Amino acid sequence: MTTDGAPATGLPMEVAAEGLPTRVRIHEVGPRDGLQNEQAVVPTEVKAEFIHRLAAAGLPVVEATSFVHPKWVPQLADAEQLFPMLGDLDPRQLPVLVPNERGLERALALGARRIAVFGSVTESFAKANLNRTVDESLAMFEPVVRRARDENMHVRGYLSMCFGDPWEGPVPIAQVVRVCRALLDLGCDELSLGDTIGAGTPGHVQHLLAALNEAGVPTTRLGVHFHDTYGQALANTFAALQHGVTTVDASAGGLGGCPYAKSATGNLATEDLVWMLHGLGIETGIDLGRLTEASEWLAGFLGRPSPSRTVRALSHKE
Amino acid sequence: MTTDGAPATGLPMEVAAEGLPTRVRIHEVGPRDGLQNEQAVVPTEVKAEFIHRLAAAGLPVVEATSFVHPKWVPQLADAEQLFPMLGDLDPRQLPVLVPNERGLERALALGARRIAVFGSVTESFAKANLNRTVDESLAMFEPVVRRARDENMHVRGYLSMCFGDPWEGPVPIAQVVRVCRALLDLGCDELSLGDTIGAGTPGHVQHLLAALNEAGVPTTRLGVHFHDTYGQALANTFAALQHGVTTVDASAGGLGGCPYAKSATGNLATEDLVWMLHGLGIETGIDLGRLTEASEWLAGFLGRPSPSRTVRALSHKE
Repeated sequence: MTTDGAPATGLPMEVAAEGLPTRVRIHEVGPRDGLQNEQAVVPTEVKAEFIHRLAAAGLPVVEATSFVHPKWVPQLADAEQLFPMLGDLDPRQLPVLVPNERGLERALALGARRIAVFGSVTESFAKANLNRTVDESLAMFEPVVRRARDENMHVRGYLSMCFGDPWEGPVPIAQVVRVCRALLDLGCDELSLGDTIGAGTPGHVQHLLAALNEAGVPTTRLGVHFHDTYGQALANTFAALQHGVTTVDASAGGLGGCPYAKSATGNLATEDLVWMLHGLGIETGIDLGRLTEASEWLAGFLGRPSPSRTVRALSHKE
Repeated sequence: MTTDGAPATGLPMEVAAEGLPTRVRIHEVGPRDGLQNEQAVVPTEVKAEFIHRLAAAGLPVVEATSFVHPKWVPQLADAEQLFPMLGDLDPRQLPVLVPNERGLERALALGARRIAVFGSVTESFAKANLNRTVDESLAMFEPVVRRARDENMHVRGYLSMCFGDPWEGPVPIAQVVRVCRALLDLGCDELSLGDTIGAGTPGHVQHLLAALNEAGVPTTRLGVHFHDTYGQALANTFAALQHGVTTVDASAGGLGGCPYAKSATGNLATEDLVWMLHGLGIETGIDLGRLTEASEWLAGFLGRPSPSRTVRALSHKE
């Protein structure tokens, strides 16, 4: 069969499902988590333009960059130059990642008002990524979160490897619960549950969310952060919505995992997520057309097609 | 962050979700729906080897080929040569598509025991694909299904464009219900609800299934057939499982939609589906490792990476 020449429909039919939230807040991670994992180093001006385009498409939160040491993440070594180029946007809309007190000082000096710290629920990844034990990393975050709270900043805590670890395999739910509780006790406003290796499936998602509720962590404090390594990200998101989650991380154009790179750990594409949410009649405030244009524009700069299926489908129709 | 050098885990952690079936039958469509939409024409020997590898991986049903006129689908013009090369397999495991009585005669002469007819729920696609109205196409199927039933064959009815049509846009649910009822009344054993343009979202899936139940169509007679054009296929499948569906169509390696072709209408990849089902603790009888090997083997022949994220992730780990 062929449908070549058929006109574009452009939008899914809107059919609500039972028991879902009426509004979801997408936490856009493309400029930080996405570009950090791209091989190419993108010029600062291109990053600034990309972030402006994302904000103009209606994304309420765009994680802008990371104040880690340039030696570790050369892709984001220009944070000091980039952040002032976003001065026309509300800094409460532009979280930045800070690894430690030195990073927080740099972010504060530039007027950042919202930060994230990046933790691990497994010892193996804490060691590999932070060169610390899980408890040592929590101790490192403690003064960061305290100072940020004193400055009235919004603080997000990332938890990586919540659904499996490449060295350790399955991750016990109790281990995730413990680190969640610890980060909330430090003073984090919200947590983001990361499936860093993309191995989780929908039952696992619902089971973890239920266990966190039982341990006194309300769903309103939780976001989900799925990688699409095994194609599970959107199904897992649907399962999380059914559990009441209203904050979902995604990366414009699926940035962050080249489909043919060695470790294909791409993020959930924001456009694929928006297609589903709008199809479900869930409000996002996002203009899918403008968002797709922003991702196509960056893909053109990177010189390769976007891994987002929605971006490819919509751009083929023009 | 990097996880290069980490050992492979290879399997998702098994965590059941509430209200799902304990077993799902995957209807593999790669050799027919997949190869029919590939640009390359694959040699008959390669097709036969591919089907044997899929059966050996535990797939219970492998749609083998199509007895349409070679002029319309040159990719499957070798049905007469291919089918006898599968003589060591159970023909009840190998459905073939037949468009009309002439096609059925050809299939019967070769010993086929299971067929499918391919209908449309929209007038535009019936006209484009079959050069008939919907009712004229049902009239064309009537003697085919009757004869097949007389021969004690299993008959599947495909319905395309159930979730949207590229010319007509949204497709009213009542229109889908009417064609479903008509195909069951003709004598079809099972129906496959196709989202041919991949535009559907999970609420739409559940709403359609509920409407079909209300119209007296039991879920046990229904399979779902999702295309991943907008990345929705696996989320839609999860929604269908929650409604009790136990027959799911998929294409090994995501065959059938080159990610960079003009109309990127790829099928749901069987491997991504199996990853989710096994993660949910749902039995399929399939060996994911052997299935992935079969898809990699064919991708090597086609000279391009598989669109299945699971195939790419597992093969990168070796």
